[in-house]
Amino acid sequence: MWDFKHISIIGLGLIGGSFALNLKKHGFPGKVTAVDLNPEAIEKGINLKVIDNGDTTGDVLKEADLIAIATPVGVYKNVLKTIREKINPEKNIIVTDLGSVKGNLVYMCEEELKNVARFVGGHPIAGTEKSGVENSIEDLFKGAKFILTPTENTDTEAKEKIKKLWHNLGSRVIEMDPYYHDKIFASVSHLPHVVAYSIVDAIDILSKQLNEDLFMFTGGGFRDFTRIAMSDPVMWRDICMENRENVLEAIKTFKDSLTHVEKLIEENDREGLKAFFETARKKRNKIS
Amino acid sequence: MWDFKHISIIGLGLIGGSFALNLKKHGFPGKVTAVDLNPEAIEKGINLKVIDNGDTTGDVLKEADLIAIATPVGVYKNVLKTIREKINPEKNIIVTDLGSVKGNLVYMCEEELKNVARFVGGHPIAGTEKSGVENSIEDLFKGAKFILTPTENTDTEAKEKIKKLWHNLGSRVIEMDPYYHDKIFASVSHLPHVVAYSIVDAIDILSKQLNEDLFMFTGGGFRDFTRIAMSDPVMWRDICMENRENVLEAIKTFKDSLTHVEKLIEENDREGLKAFFETARKKRNKIS
Repeated sequence: MWDFKHISIIGLGLIGGSFALNLKKHGFPGKVTAVDLNPEAIEKGINLKVIDNGDTTGDVLKEADLIAIATPVGVYKNVLKTIREKINPEKNIIVTDLGSVKGNLVYMCEEELKNVARFVGGHPIAGTEKSGVENSIEDLFKGAKFILTPTENTDTEAKEKIKKLWHNLGSRVIEMDPYYHDKIFASVSHLPHVVAYSIVDAIDILSKQLNEDLFMFTGGGFRDFTRIAMSDPVMWRDICMENRENVLEAIKTFKDSLTHVEKLIEENDREGLKAFFETARKKRNKIS
Repeated sequence: MWDFKHISIIGLGLIGGSFALNLKKHGFPGKVTAVDLNPEAIEKGINLKVIDNGDTTGDVLKEADLIAIATPVGVYKNVLKTIREKINPEKNIIVTDLGSVKGNLVYMCEEELKNVARFVGGHPIAGTEKSGVENSIEDLFKGAKFILTPTENTDTEAKEKIKKLWHNLGSRVIEMDPYYHDKIFASVSHLPHVVAYSIVDAIDILSKQLNEDLFMFTGGGFRDFTRIAMSDPVMWRDICMENRENVLEAIKTFKDSLTHVEKLIEENDREGLKAFFETARKKRNKIS
């Protein structure tokens, strides 16, 4: 059932913490450790029994047979350096990640770990706007998609073991080209976050123009709509920067849609605007 | 406690139905009737015990001492015509509304009902993406803001009675200039709806470009984010058209915010993008 004896997680936030927690909840009998630059995260993780042990130096990585990177994607370079320094290349262990951008990053991980470890890229489609190991969520990955992004360089055995691991946590594993992954999630995940942060910014600007705290007049719809604007700024900054081209392309398409609506309103095209809203509603209804 | 004996609601959808339901739940001892062009809505309303009686012709209005308009704002002209035809001017009854746009509409209602009834404009800040009397919600208005928009023409006694009515339903009544109301809600309510519909449109376009149903890859964040895109298209078309100038102004400000983010990403301004997301997050956190 389990191919690993010691799984070590780098980056003990909500995703890393939830991964650790769910390994334990789903019966992983081995050791779960973590590395985080913030000693408080490690302390909390141990106290909450999310991890067995951990450190800020990366020494725990020496004993791991699986390392899972769960940091913001912007610090992968440093993380890979630490991994290279700590692990024994002869053990040929597996390294995987839980990052929201794949594409070039997967190839960079492969390159940096060449002759040192076997890398398999992955992305669990789960999370919340919350951050921190203390917000780790039981069954976060159950029923959720897990995107596995093997390349022509991926070790087949390693890939199958990672697949099995996520099956064990209840995820539905989908294999996908890393670059294709980035196109898809630029649209359905990265764009919505950019838009949510931007609309909060716009309402702040409009508040200043009116000299009125407009946020006081928001209702439940607005709260749902902007919940993702409470997500971690560093994580999302890194995602936008790493997936720059696709995110910019998605923003451009969205701006065109918005310009289309603007025109319908300007031209008082009542039938056109109704049809636009109706079509969008139908598309959205399908996933409700 | 209650100043009315027979309240008649025009437009028996989610808002009109919830208003009726909550009158009863909060102990209104009088009669509650409704007028709707759709006989099924009236039938459902009676069967669900949301209203006592109703019709499609407006004849029930003859007996009402309060009429509440709860239709999309685009049909107010016709609604006011029906009211004029049905009521007895000598009774000097009160007419109010629950529409999301005030401004010119309030003055139009006053003008059309001059010498016939006393109009008081209002807007309960409550609702969901659902539609229809069958989705009426108990305590929908409890704890919610109710914006009352009196003008220099408003009858003071009528205004106080409407205020008391909404207090009875648990709402917090705020008085506001009708034009000021429209500026505020263009930003915090109308803009978010336009954006939600537009992002669904954009993802549909991106789906076609990739020849992939991108909606299949959305997660919980996206569902929350686009929930309001399931709202009634006619209602929102009417709101955007009636509040055209303010909505266009809000869209323009939002597009500027989006362009700002675009530039930060293009220029790889990591600190700038982080600061932008951080500031938005802080603003949003305040209303969570």
